[in-house]
Amino acid sequence: MSRTDGSGQMIEVIGLDADDTLWHCEDGFERAIDEFVDLLLPNAEGFDRAAVRAALERTERANLPLLGYGVKAFTIAMVEAAVMLAGERLSPLAVEQVVQIGKRLFAEPVILIEGVGDVVPLLAQDYRLVMITKGDLLHQERKIVDSGLAAHFDAIEVISEKDVPTYRRVLRELRIDPSSFVMVGNSVRSDVLPVLALGASAVHIPYEIVWSHEIAMHDGSVPELASIRELPGWLATRRGVGRSAHC
Amino acid sequence: MSRTDGSGQMIEVIGLDADDTLWHCEDGFERAIDEFVDLLLPNAEGFDRAAVRAALERTERANLPLLGYGVKAFTIAMVEAAVMLAGERLSPLAVEQVVQIGKRLFAEPVILIEGVGDVVPLLAQDYRLVMITKGDLLHQERKIVDSGLAAHFDAIEVISEKDVPTYRRVLRELRIDPSSFVMVGNSVRSDVLPVLALGASAVHIPYEIVWSHEIAMHDGSVPELASIRELPGWLATRRGVGRSAHC
Repeated sequence: MSRTDGSGQMIEVIGLDADDTLWHCEDGFERAIDEFVDLLLPNAEGFDRAAVRAALERTERANLPLLGYGVKAFTIAMVEAAVMLAGERLSPLAVEQVVQIGKRLFAEPVILIEGVGDVVPLLAQDYRLVMITKGDLLHQERKIVDSGLAAHFDAIEVISEKDVPTYRRVLRELRIDPSSFVMVGNSVRSDVLPVLALGASAVHIPYEIVWSHEIAMHDGSVPELASIRELPGWLATRRGVGRSAHC
Repeated sequence: MSRTDGSGQMIEVIGLDADDTLWHCEDGFERAIDEFVDLLLPNAEGFDRAAVRAALERTERANLPLLGYGVKAFTIAMVEAAVMLAGERLSPLAVEQVVQIGKRLFAEPVILIEGVGDVVPLLAQDYRLVMITKGDLLHQERKIVDSGLAAHFDAIEVISEKDVPTYRRVLRELRIDPSSFVMVGNSVRSDVLPVLALGASAVHIPYEIVWSHEIAMHDGSVPELASIRELPGWLATRRGVGRSAHC
């Protein structure tokens, strides 16, 4: 476990990402993409599986500035990619099936990641917990309720982009001093880099699947944990450092 | 102007709905629906204009519990309704055109309702202003920025449903006493009734078009203004009442 931040400041508030940090998310998208490829491949002349998938990802990415993240934007991208891939061979039935892939993904039950159900209530005893997640507002709210975790959080922020200005606004609104804040999440791009830029700390807990859009590098100095089960131990060390620095 | 609430409590915080209260919204949906009807009618055998429109509205309403409000949910409903209406006659080009209707609506510029640009800065001098709006998070955030009004608001809340529990949560989070709060909006169902249920006040400013989903009745005791330009005057009367009751 690497710990080179060493500011010595006590952590008082823990920000937790939700999708792929508290509960599984990207695996559902993976299954949906597989269904989409299965459906389109027979009519996507000249495309193999990888090319069908790449076409969907290109459409999704091109739509991001306009439509943002979440299952509804993904569903619209699937419809557009289906038209592009199958052209005149696209049947109305296939269009309907594409929409149903999206709707099923929207309705999928929340499954907590291993360890979360034990660790989050523990952390809530000693720290102020804040959930910071991006995506579709209604969908995220529903997942928060279904997760059974809401009561452990002091605040829940659904935001449209995890960038430096948005984190700055959230910390200011919640009256959180960056030096007392650590953000915990699976995405280096969304949960780590913008938070470090504000002078706060970050802990990276990778998920089994990384969405290509979220791939980003850091210089190796960010603590990386294999599981949220390691987080209380990391915080205890951090707390210890804080104490020794002040006493 | 009817004023029968008569609690005598001073108004300190004004909640303002956004779509169709601060800026035009439903007229954009109306134009999009017209485009959709124009596109589908030639291939929707046995449907006239009203029936095409009704089919779209039914689909949208059936999706509401799962997909919620906003242009992305509307776009998905248009795709589904197109399949239902045109069946085997639905061309891939028409599917693409349906998606484009939704994307254009998403990208439409914000046009303030007459009077808003004058009145909101005035109100901000004397009251704490809070924007409370439902819909798609990213889209609403973009409209708030484009409106040029954000700086006048102390808080901006994008919520997924305007019901009693959600208003209760928002007022609690913003530390607003219901008796000092008035909500101003164009929808009796969303901006008036749930707020009255919490013991706060409400002012109804109807918009030129009412979405069928938002139609609701009140008993006639809620103040109804023809324009936001009448709001400062209404508040001044209210303020006077407040003062005389306390002094």
